[in-house]
Amino acid sequence: MSVCVVGSIAFDSIETPFGKRERALGGTAVHFALAASFFTDVRLVGVVGEDFSAEELHLLESRGIDLRDVERVDGGKTFFWRGRYGYDLNVAETLETQLNVFAQFAPRLSAASKRARTLFLGNIQPGLQRAVRAQCTGARLVALDSMNYWIESARDELVRAISEIDCLLLNDAEARQLTQQPNLVRAARTIRSWGPRTVVTKLGEYGAYLFGEHGFFGLPGYPLEDARDPTGAGDTFAGGFLGYLAARGEEEPTDDALRCAMTYGSVIASFNVEGLGTERVQSLSREEIEERFAQFRRFTHFEPIPEAAR
Amino acid sequence: MSVCVVGSIAFDSIETPFGKRERALGGTAVHFALAASFFTDVRLVGVVGEDFSAEELHLLESRGIDLRDVERVDGGKTFFWRGRYGYDLNVAETLETQLNVFAQFAPRLSAASKRARTLFLGNIQPGLQRAVRAQCTGARLVALDSMNYWIESARDELVRAISEIDCLLLNDAEARQLTQQPNLVRAARTIRSWGPRTVVTKLGEYGAYLFGEHGFFGLPGYPLEDARDPTGAGDTFAGGFLGYLAARGEEEPTDDALRCAMTYGSVIASFNVEGLGTERVQSLSREEIEERFAQFRRFTHFEPIPEAAR
Repeated sequence: MSVCVVGSIAFDSIETPFGKRERALGGTAVHFALAASFFTDVRLVGVVGEDFSAEELHLLESRGIDLRDVERVDGGKTFFWRGRYGYDLNVAETLETQLNVFAQFAPRLSAASKRARTLFLGNIQPGLQRAVRAQCTGARLVALDSMNYWIESARDELVRAISEIDCLLLNDAEARQLTQQPNLVRAARTIRSWGPRTVVTKLGEYGAYLFGEHGFFGLPGYPLEDARDPTGAGDTFAGGFLGYLAARGEEEPTDDALRCAMTYGSVIASFNVEGLGTERVQSLSREEIEERFAQFRRFTHFEPIPEAAR
Repeated sequence: MSVCVVGSIAFDSIETPFGKRERALGGTAVHFALAASFFTDVRLVGVVGEDFSAEELHLLESRGIDLRDVERVDGGKTFFWRGRYGYDLNVAETLETQLNVFAQFAPRLSAASKRARTLFLGNIQPGLQRAVRAQCTGARLVALDSMNYWIESARDELVRAISEIDCLLLNDAEARQLTQQPNLVRAARTIRSWGPRTVVTKLGEYGAYLFGEHGFFGLPGYPLEDARDPTGAGDTFAGGFLGYLAARGEEEPTDDALRCAMTYGSVIASFNVEGLGTERVQSLSREEIEERFAQFRRFTHFEPIPEAAR
């Protein structure tokens, strides 16, 4: 079953203490699509300018990503972001943002994309997220991500968008800000009362928590010694998470499937952070993913020791 | 096998958005001892003033805590701390600290305490921690906790103290500050290169990570809806962790035992946070502890779904 993603396609110029890249392929939809492509067919809805080259298109297509809903604006330039991280990789400093063709982005889904069973509404203006949700009439599992900018500037529209989806993914600070509730359990309950069955809070190096119909599931972060660039980690997580669920194709994801999806999301996000931009995920294999999935089990498994052995 | 703890015995006046207590029983050694007492015999080494009442002594003794190494200073007053928390319970504001009799504390261990196999050096001056370590000749498993104050004012002595122990417990910010290393995996590796086989980083609501000879183990935080007062949560964690290991009495804790110890520490700390001061742990039962231990397994367990079921 295919997954459809709408969001930014970008060139990112990134500087971290561990390296520097100019105009690397990036953006929410790209990070998501690359991650999801390990599990299922991906349809990408986005917009690029004339500066988006055949090489970049080929890279995405070689991962089986369908680009027929990517609009190319003649004479336009692709979304551009320049940012910098210090040794504390949790804090990004934005040096430059050029929306370019993204400023006029009005997503139009082809008939095939409208039939996608799984939809990811990446971090864009909440009104656009709602418009895409409304077009995608075939979707049975719709997830959404957002950010502090929309919480501050378009909260009402964002809450409406959230009320129309099945699964919200946010980082913990965003969940607290959105609900004005410092306690994450209560924040998740508030969000679930608006509509979504499932709330995932991403905690960066501390892992990820899921609050859903089957209760709570928590996963620690992967113990990364060589974290180099967190750009796109959240979108990569979403790609692994939703890509896995889309591949399973259940009407309602089971508890077991959601737990595995959380783990696959964490696995691919951990790889993403090991390289600059999308580099590490581009070179990733399914075998490496499965190996790290197994590691996650060893890192988290415990069982009571029978009293007799005490 | 008994566990011996050295650290503060205090009266804490605490104000949180969820309640207020004047001169509640507190301090590192008290929080630790109450938690450890669910698993094993505890010997408490500390100092109190004349204002420490028979009622408080009785409360500790009723939990089987041996107080023969608690010195009582005639005419002196017990350590006093006054603090306040806002809705963000992660940040404590200290309003008043009176060291009182604790300022002249020179721990002297009885013969019985010197023979304890397990020793917890609570957060006190690192020179005193070393002196206690040297006295406790029977100890086979020695753990230590510290804080930013000692990292800033007595780092060299603290590193020496750490080099003489088996297990360091710190929160993540302290581990980063101590090693000047923002990456937690590298911070733990640096600390382990000084001597300790095991490093535990406490992450508050994000759980706890263990770095040791058997590799990494990570546990999420318990999803607490009613967090009221985090005072003493770290010491309570240490009490559950070391109390469980002391009860098992192994020369070298096994990987399985360390994982269970992490979980018991997290369980009791989560209860501690639900009440003001030590109130909730005072009323706790072993059955409630085992129930929450089982919950932790449900909250963290996952397994791969066979390909055929996909």
